[in-house]
Amino acid sequence: MSAAYDPDNIFAKILRGELPAHTVYEDAHTLAFMDVMPQGEGHTLVIPKAPSRGLLDAEPETLAALARSVQTVARAVKAAFEADGLTVFQFNEPASGQTVFHLHFHIIPRRDGVPLKRHEGGMADGAVLAEHAARIRAALG
Amino acid sequence: MSAAYDPDNIFAKILRGELPAHTVYEDAHTLAFMDVMPQGEGHTLVIPKAPSRGLLDAEPETLAALARSVQTVARAVKAAFEADGLTVFQFNEPASGQTVFHLHFHIIPRRDGVPLKRHEGGMADGAVLAEHAARIRAALG
Repeated sequence: MSAAYDPDNIFAKILRGELPAHTVYEDAHTLAFMDVMPQGEGHTLVIPKAPSRGLLDAEPETLAALARSVQTVARAVKAAFEADGLTVFQFNEPASGQTVFHLHFHIIPRRDGVPLKRHEGGMADGAVLAEHAARIRAALG
Repeated sequence: MSAAYDPDNIFAKILRGELPAHTVYEDAHTLAFMDVMPQGEGHTLVIPKAPSRGLLDAEPETLAALARSVQTVARAVKAAFEADGLTVFQFNEPASGQTVFHLHFHIIPRRDGVPLKRHEGGMADGAVLAEHAARIRAALG
């Protein structure tokens, strides 16, 4: 079994407004914001508001809402960055590289021939992330 | 824009029964089977029956059914392989490494400290895949 949900994870703090984020999308059930350690320009995260540690413990309605938002945000990210493709990752438990224990989908715009950067490649500049978030919000209309 | 859906992709052929697969799960809207070039033991794919090239062109009901099946199969894969974690990938367009142009989610059991193999690492032995598929079906049932 997985460990229990820890309400002090950083995404829970973002959801409670205790930590800032460069938000691109929000609805009743989900939130999307820029990854602060992007593996590529425009790397965006989509999370449910409901407390789920990972894919396996998410409630069906949580998962359904999340899937809709992943698609909505993915379309906007691709348009905003005129990407050739999109990589979607979802990691469960440390064995898979999960570092924040609140369910999240990574959406990363891809360009032909450009490899992903390592996730631990460092914190992005806040002004750059703010500009990227604005670009995605504009694409969302 | 993405290219149109090609009904001659190999997953469409699997859905039509024109190519074999080591199937682990099937319902009205989705099918799951073993990846023949696994990046780890138990690497499973989940696809919708509806023709979708990738995440962006999937109909909402297709995506909802797919998300449910991904969770169902992921739970079984984790149990069947007593995995420490699960990696979920979904690639869109060649820039992201998509090689079969029918929407699919990869589910890969992970063990602490064991890296993923390259996807092009070679075809798995059919008997091994058959045994792995049986193990996942048992976990489902």
